[in-house]
Amino acid sequence: MKIRTICVPKVCVQFNQPMLSEKITTHLVKLKQKKYREEFGEFVVEGLKGVEEALHYGEVVLILIEGNRRDEPEFVGMIKKAETKQVDVEFLGRKDIGPIKTTDTFPGVLAVCERMDVSPDDVINGKPIIFLDRIKDPGNLGTIIRTADWFGIQNIILSEESVDPYNEKVVRSSMGSMFRTKIFESGHGVNTLESLKKQGYTIIALTMNGKPIKMLKSSPKTVYVFGSESHGVSQDVLNVCQEKISIEGRGDAESLNVAVSVGIVLSYYMIHAL
Amino acid sequence: MKIRTICVPKVCVQFNQPMLSEKITTHLVKLKQKKYREEFGEFVVEGLKGVEEALHYGEVVLILIEGNRRDEPEFVGMIKKAETKQVDVEFLGRKDIGPIKTTDTFPGVLAVCERMDVSPDDVINGKPIIFLDRIKDPGNLGTIIRTADWFGIQNIILSEESVDPYNEKVVRSSMGSMFRTKIFESGHGVNTLESLKKQGYTIIALTMNGKPIKMLKSSPKTVYVFGSESHGVSQDVLNVCQEKISIEGRGDAESLNVAVSVGIVLSYYMIHAL
Repeated sequence: MKIRTICVPKVCVQFNQPMLSEKITTHLVKLKQKKYREEFGEFVVEGLKGVEEALHYGEVVLILIEGNRRDEPEFVGMIKKAETKQVDVEFLGRKDIGPIKTTDTFPGVLAVCERMDVSPDDVINGKPIIFLDRIKDPGNLGTIIRTADWFGIQNIILSEESVDPYNEKVVRSSMGSMFRTKIFESGHGVNTLESLKKQGYTIIALTMNGKPIKMLKSSPKTVYVFGSESHGVSQDVLNVCQEKISIEGRGDAESLNVAVSVGIVLSYYMIHAL
Repeated sequence: MKIRTICVPKVCVQFNQPMLSEKITTHLVKLKQKKYREEFGEFVVEGLKGVEEALHYGEVVLILIEGNRRDEPEFVGMIKKAETKQVDVEFLGRKDIGPIKTTDTFPGVLAVCERMDVSPDDVINGKPIIFLDRIKDPGNLGTIIRTADWFGIQNIILSEESVDPYNEKVVRSSMGSMFRTKIFESGHGVNTLESLKKQGYTIIALTMNGKPIKMLKSSPKTVYVFGSESHGVSQDVLNVCQEKISIEGRGDAESLNVAVSVGIVLSYYMIHAL
């Protein structure tokens, strides 16, 4: 059941004692679980910046604002914008916040959004693609999405066994960038890469034993493959890759954080693509 | 009071029912707070990798291992190494873990370490220095330390109002790298930078309106200044900086994660310093 169908009438905006209906609270609590995000085709974004980006680039179903902050200028502006876009706004009483918030300190606003429906074709547009092999850490995935967006790269593929991109921590750490990127969740990463190779993409993996990254001469039609921090790029994925590159270090650290690695590779791509 | 003085005799290693003394439990719980970490001059590192690095590069006072995992090969090896280094090892019963652990899932081992005593002179060795202006997020600081270590840069200065580098989340996300870096906590960042300038260092800040980073021609005697994500480099610090550089983006993301930015800047330093 979609949240649209359980929305209470607009009149609740006038309540002196802001209070969410139990049905909506239950729905929002359910959205903390992946299976319900999939079932309802919805997810939650929390915080002013994220909700603003969602309103601008995403499909917002419902906005919930902390009742006692409704007169703060940024929320007044948001309510206005929501009206223009015909998005419902409701207000939260203090007691409503506890069960539904996804952060320790509730930032005053959250929105329920429709999941993006991304097909393989959506990420194939002749521009670089980031392929993430079994990335499990939501903070890392969010930061990677944000970094890709910074460098103007919108195409992201997640292999099987990856963290859910609609997990609230992913959404939060993407800082709104996830509404500007296209994330295709592949059920079989190797098959997806094979298919991209057939379409003329060069598949390059970041590994510990590749060519130095400064030798990277990349064309836009490139797939950059990154593995998980604990296991690196898996062997079956590596078998599909045509090139291996490495970020040279000089110290004793065992590895770089994967989001930092993505940033470094994309900054080199930027230079060579210019 | 240091934990050394409250350590129970070695015989507890033989207990069939592993159990921590209340004094040690209380001490470890206190170490979750900055004021006690400062008072005792100690901090906690959790997890196999971190404790291994601590044993190798740091000053470990006490190691605590989950009792029912003491026969696992990695812990047997660790106990042996601790003996060689004359570090006390104790074992934890299931009930001991709850109050002292700093992660949801206890990774089986933690160590109490002595804080490093870093003076300004320790970070002035003619090599690059990373200066962090009011970085508050512990995960970001830990990742920056790890990234610096990867690129062989050991000198880090924190301005006033920064997160405590001995915070458990910083320690954890540094992945052991904090034992190989020297972190000087400056009480007055601007004064520290002025003094470095007098000693011939070039002070370069990463900002949103600097020269493109590919124009970076850096010498080893450089201080790279990074600001917090929410506020950037503060004006008083900027006034001391001689150059401003930027990482060029192409998308709509408002900013890059600060740890990602450090990684990109240091990878450029590496290329130009070779």
